[in-house]
Amino acid sequence: MENFSQRITAMQASPIRKLTPYAEKAKADGKKIYHLNIGQPDIETPKNFMEAIKSFDEKVLAYTASQGIPQLIQAIIRYYKKYNMHFEKDEVLITNGGSEALLFTLLAIADYGDEVIIPEPFYTNYAGFNAIAGIKTVPLITEASSGFHLPKKEEIEKLITNKTKAILVTNPGNPTGAVFTEEEVNLLADIAKKHNLFIISDEVYREFVYNGLKFKSFGSIPSIKDQVILIDSVSKRFSACGARIGAILSKNKKLIAQILKICQGRLCCPTLEQIGAAALYDVPEDYFKKVLSEYQKRRDILYSKLQEIPGVVCQNPEGAFYVIAKLPVKNAEEFIIWLLKDFDLNGETVMFAPAQGFYITPNAGEDEVRIAYILNENDLKKAMDILKVALKKYPKRK
Amino acid sequence: MENFSQRITAMQASPIRKLTPYAEKAKADGKKIYHLNIGQPDIETPKNFMEAIKSFDEKVLAYTASQGIPQLIQAIIRYYKKYNMHFEKDEVLITNGGSEALLFTLLAIADYGDEVIIPEPFYTNYAGFNAIAGIKTVPLITEASSGFHLPKKEEIEKLITNKTKAILVTNPGNPTGAVFTEEEVNLLADIAKKHNLFIISDEVYREFVYNGLKFKSFGSIPSIKDQVILIDSVSKRFSACGARIGAILSKNKKLIAQILKICQGRLCCPTLEQIGAAALYDVPEDYFKKVLSEYQKRRDILYSKLQEIPGVVCQNPEGAFYVIAKLPVKNAEEFIIWLLKDFDLNGETVMFAPAQGFYITPNAGEDEVRIAYILNENDLKKAMDILKVALKKYPKRK
Repeated sequence: MENFSQRITAMQASPIRKLTPYAEKAKADGKKIYHLNIGQPDIETPKNFMEAIKSFDEKVLAYTASQGIPQLIQAIIRYYKKYNMHFEKDEVLITNGGSEALLFTLLAIADYGDEVIIPEPFYTNYAGFNAIAGIKTVPLITEASSGFHLPKKEEIEKLITNKTKAILVTNPGNPTGAVFTEEEVNLLADIAKKHNLFIISDEVYREFVYNGLKFKSFGSIPSIKDQVILIDSVSKRFSACGARIGAILSKNKKLIAQILKICQGRLCCPTLEQIGAAALYDVPEDYFKKVLSEYQKRRDILYSKLQEIPGVVCQNPEGAFYVIAKLPVKNAEEFIIWLLKDFDLNGETVMFAPAQGFYITPNAGEDEVRIAYILNENDLKKAMDILKVALKKYPKRK
Repeated sequence: MENFSQRITAMQASPIRKLTPYAEKAKADGKKIYHLNIGQPDIETPKNFMEAIKSFDEKVLAYTASQGIPQLIQAIIRYYKKYNMHFEKDEVLITNGGSEALLFTLLAIADYGDEVIIPEPFYTNYAGFNAIAGIKTVPLITEASSGFHLPKKEEIEKLITNKTKAILVTNPGNPTGAVFTEEEVNLLADIAKKHNLFIISDEVYREFVYNGLKFKSFGSIPSIKDQVILIDSVSKRFSACGARIGAILSKNKKLIAQILKICQGRLCCPTLEQIGAAALYDVPEDYFKKVLSEYQKRRDILYSKLQEIPGVVCQNPEGAFYVIAKLPVKNAEEFIIWLLKDFDLNGETVMFAPAQGFYITPNAGEDEVRIAYILNENDLKKAMDILKVALKKYPKRK
């Protein structure tokens, strides 16, 4: 029987994960793959995580509160205080990763047929969540040539209709690596205020900002505090992607109370991973400095290596750990499949995410890849050397 | 700002959890509460769970496969083999509890405005998931007087429209405690076959069947194997509710491939809890026997104690660990709030779930409660003694 829903058949497979079968085949054939396709850092997870979990000694692994366990909520509240953002306990919900935080938020602020504006290219799963929620994704086109920064106010406002419920941003940007300037943040805040829109701000890469740039959170603007929903996660902050612990934060208590109903529907988040996540927030402050300097080094290496490859075009990313690079190929997905199936350099190859999946504008990003610089210096260098040779040998090079 | 979505504002708060603030207040005031409102057993979680997790020694807590970790998928396949149901690895998806399994399944088989038939009363969160997915819940009324068994074929078929996509059942039943006879299972299978419907069968209580009754799974009927989707979970089977590990199983590989796209959107389930869950399936076979005999004992106590309370009406449940009881009160929710706020017997009280939340037919179940018999013999007896006294003292008794 194949009478599946339209929403599911229309949903695209994850561009980050859909080429996994080719990667598995390549590995089975003995190839080593440098995985730059997925935001899975190689940074060690702080030991606090497992230590806290190992000390769990309840006899029954019971349900916890739908909102999240109190010590994790308190840890997150303390963390935000450092950034001069003050949340109370009924302004925070713990979720199964940033993913669930985002899905539940979208369901709570938009109905079937409503619209959400998202700067494009965007984290691909946003469109997926919108698709299953019946919400129309309205792309706000940003250009590689201006480092994926926002266009003028008029360009943004002309996308707003009476169906528009929210502007959804990732800042620092995935997949773009762009970090909004203070002016950009204020611009979106003004637009939200004027048009009565929510701002859903996915700030999971908050710590990953380079060149001494200043990061401004949408959570720091009093005039729109009722309209801002922050999406958070421990995945990248503490290299704990497998914990699947995220959070929703908003000063709009009534909104949080509404979303709590969906949280109650799925009962609770996993107990142990919440206990571990709470302990992560006890890492000493210099943890973030060390990690940041490691990523800044990686970014510098990646960017300089990419500059050396003929035909590759990209901007130097300002934050997160991704870059969108234009390759001298017609179709980047085909090229990646070729890298996995038909190419190797001394038994090794490299994998990226085809960037087309981060756009919904037809044909946009066809010759682009998203590169996640989540491997150490040596591996990154090797991966870029492989890319250089591969592009030389690729039979369908433009 | 309060322009929330209609779907979220229309969603009812969980009847199982919405009275929690009253319970918290009562506890803060020093009252002891016997919690029979939630399906949280006091049975110890097998030690395998924590042992497996403690032996995890990867340095990076990484994302895992969106489908689930291989050892857990294999453990579940082996488990089903015992019941003579044979699944392959591309017929299983690991989910964040049975809750996510259900939500993803509904999204995959029904669009906005489509209909799903559910025997009523039903597990309350089914209606919640349907509400946020824009699916209409069509109640198939079953009666306490016939032990909540199915009505005649005509009664079921007359609910089917061209919008009907599936029949969703819990078997053994939550909150009813009913276990479908082989005839009932075959009846629904025939109807599904004839009208080309999916059967979503939530069988998380498979092991909890009393009186030596035989449980027949919808997964055991070859003629509709393409139409059956099983919802599963370790929560009740192994008293591991806090693990939040569930699964979707179907012989319809194309359906599984579609749902995998949503799974990819939320990346993966938590790593450690999956490792623990896989180890749970290694418990020796007599674990299930011991647990079953414990629950059968509890059911017997509960039922005989309920029979002794004047004005209480209920059937002897055949499975799961719930019973719907009619109380001699006009409004059961008011009565429960009174139990928490205004009553105690030597500093103790008892909590149930108001059954009205398990119905969508207006006013149905207003004088009923769902009682979960998840406490040990002594506590159950005490809880029933408290109920008996409370009903005598309740000023608004009918």
